Amino acid sequence: MTSSLGLVTPHTFTFGEAEPFVLESGATLGPVTLAYETYGRLNAARSNAILILHALSGSAHAAGTHAADDAHPGWWDECIGPGKAFDTERYFVICSNVLGSCYGSSGPTAENPQTGRPYGLAFPVVTVGDMVRAQERLLDHLGIERLLCAAGGSMGGMQVLEWAAHHPGRLRAAIPLATTARHSPMLIALSEVGRQAIYADPAWNNGDYYANGHKPDAGLAVARMVGHITYLSDASMNQKFGRRLQTREQYGYEFQTEFAVESYLKYNGNNFTRRFDANSYLYVTKAMDYFDLTQPTGSLAAALAGASAIKFLVVSFTSDWLYPSYHSKDLVRALHTVGADVTYLDIESTWGHDAFLLEVDTMTRLLGSFLDRLAQEEGVARP
Amino acid sequence: MTSSLGLVTPHTFTFGEAEPFVLESGATLGPVTLAYETYGRLNAARSNAILILHALSGSAHAAGTHAADDAHPGWWDECIGPGKAFDTERYFVICSNVLGSCYGSSGPTAENPQTGRPYGLAFPVVTVGDMVRAQERLLDHLGIERLLCAAGGSMGGMQVLEWAAHHPGRLRAAIPLATTARHSPMLIALSEVGRQAIYADPAWNNGDYYANGHKPDAGLAVARMVGHITYLSDASMNQKFGRRLQTREQYGYEFQTEFAVESYLKYNGNNFTRRFDANSYLYVTKAMDYFDLTQPTGSLAAALAGASAIKFLVVSFTSDWLYPSYHSKDLVRALHTVGADVTYLDIESTWGHDAFLLEVDTMTRLLGSFLDRLAQEEGVARP
Repeated sequence: MTSSLGLVTPHTFTFGEAEPFVLESGATLGPVTLAYETYGRLNAARSNAILILHALSGSAHAAGTHAADDAHPGWWDECIGPGKAFDTERYFVICSNVLGSCYGSSGPTAENPQTGRPYGLAFPVVTVGDMVRAQERLLDHLGIERLLCAAGGSMGGMQVLEWAAHHPGRLRAAIPLATTARHSPMLIALSEVGRQAIYADPAWNNGDYYANGHKPDAGLAVARMVGHITYLSDASMNQKFGRRLQTREQYGYEFQTEFAVESYLKYNGNNFTRRFDANSYLYVTKAMDYFDLTQPTGSLAAALAGASAIKFLVVSFTSDWLYPSYHSKDLVRALHTVGADVTYLDIESTWGHDAFLLEVDTMTRLLGSFLDRLAQEEGVARP
Repeated sequence: MTSSLGLVTPHTFTFGEAEPFVLESGATLGPVTLAYETYGRLNAARSNAILILHALSGSAHAAGTHAADDAHPGWWDECIGPGKAFDTERYFVICSNVLGSCYGSSGPTAENPQTGRPYGLAFPVVTVGDMVRAQERLLDHLGIERLLCAAGGSMGGMQVLEWAAHHPGRLRAAIPLATTARHSPMLIALSEVGRQAIYADPAWNNGDYYANGHKPDAGLAVARMVGHITYLSDASMNQKFGRRLQTREQYGYEFQTEFAVESYLKYNGNNFTRRFDANSYLYVTKAMDYFDLTQPTGSLAAALAGASAIKFLVVSFTSDWLYPSYHSKDLVRALHTVGADVTYLDIESTWGHDAFLLEVDTMTRLLGSFLDRLAQEEGVARP
């Protein structure tokens, strides 16, 4: 597949060598590495930077390709590039891999300097707050005092809200998509089932499997299958698969994958084990489960009191049962309470949670015009 | 716990010794045993029999207790007994364990007469149609030509619909609750994730684990956890658990069960492995996945053409996302097309799929008055 951005270069940024990074838990971590990529150019006023935040299984590779023969471009390539929603002719787009992940940032797969071997479960539990404070160090490193915008869906949206609530002076606008300010018990339950599937795999070996040549792939695949069901909707599964059999003409009356929807899950579950780490799955889902902006006061409006000068574009999707629209509506209500400038859209879509990635035309129009107005109001010069 | 029915006696009925039972797949099975229980007495006209059909993990033990110190009565004890919805002073209530299950009926845990050991995966794949045809043999054995009613929720409701569509002459009324005439791809996907969790457990050993002293408990527990999430709703989980921590005052920043919803899932998942068989989980979910009354014509009305003389009480629940109300509405539409007498209620409830078991007061009023009218119209004498 081709990308309008062409080849892009992965970067890393390391900090906390001299003084370790203090996590929300009180634990310390150092050195800390973040993998990141950038697209487009920073303007002279350093006012055109947009930070893209990724979801559970995402990486810093949001757009472009790493090699001429790459099978796929970055995960949000359809929205990042020249003339796209995040127009790289106008904006300097940054995406970094979150702390705890396995795509080049510090996480359980990284080398533990104390042992010279991968951290495994010796890696400290991190929070969305920690992820964002690490990104803040990256912005310092890149010399960006204030972002034009932070944008992301799902866990990416949680990071956007964390930025807005706890670092409001560092962004002009925020685009949280298909997300929540407070992980619900249903979301925690779904995370926990995925984690239990990993724990249940003997190859997981309490997180110590990197030297064994045998990873907990079976458990991770089951976790991912649960995830895939939650990213779709009843309606989209009816449209996409129905009760179609994958290869057979009639029921086989045996325990083989035979419905098309079963093949889809199995394929994606197995595929995931080739690109993601089981321990990272534990860390990143745990960070999501801990996410609750209403703490410690119990009031979301109180948490967002400092965000009144930020412009928000909040988007939910009618068939997203993982992050149902009421989460976004609660957020919008809190933002109105603090007097923030909010645009909210509950988009009619049958694509479930995945809609924020799949409804490309709608998202392009919506994000594009929001950013366009924002850039004009802010007098953001082209690079 | 006490039951108004007191002690009840489990029975078994065996058939197919001389001539084996031919399954929908074409495979044969014999002998076939069904475990069953009955409550109340058959009247002289044999016109007051009600067949209760159970769901995925249910058994023939629908009401009463098996011993004075039983911790729990049967699974629908709140609705079966003197003066209850299924009033045992008036009706002869029968419940049999489905084919493929592990509560006394023929299934993978039963002895394979060819080997003298449990069947395991040598047990043939059965369908909801097979389950119902086996129940028909039981009715013949009990001397019941025509049921006053067949009633059940979830997979029990599928059996009710199978009775109505393919054996309409043998029942006067049908009560399908929280169910569907056609298992959707989302339901298949959820079944398959549970099965994959079992397959992924090395102790499953391709279904051959009965002699190993080591069952695939870890896999079955994960499958059940997925199930439990689907039986609840986002709203009921918010009410029941919220983000409450089970024992801690604050986050532990480690991979332990700490949220109340996690404890609930873990407890129920582990508990299930002490009472259910992993292979039976495969067989029963597969039967549900194959269930599609619209086949072979593609028309549900065509499938129900013979059911026009049956009175239906169809019930769905607003927060049931596993069997959303549209399934019941499609069914009601088809029943109207064939001219059946249908009462349909979409009950406002936050309890999700479990509502059919939990909304006891509503169900008691509803089922009780439906049966009351039915018994009067039919001139059903007390036993």
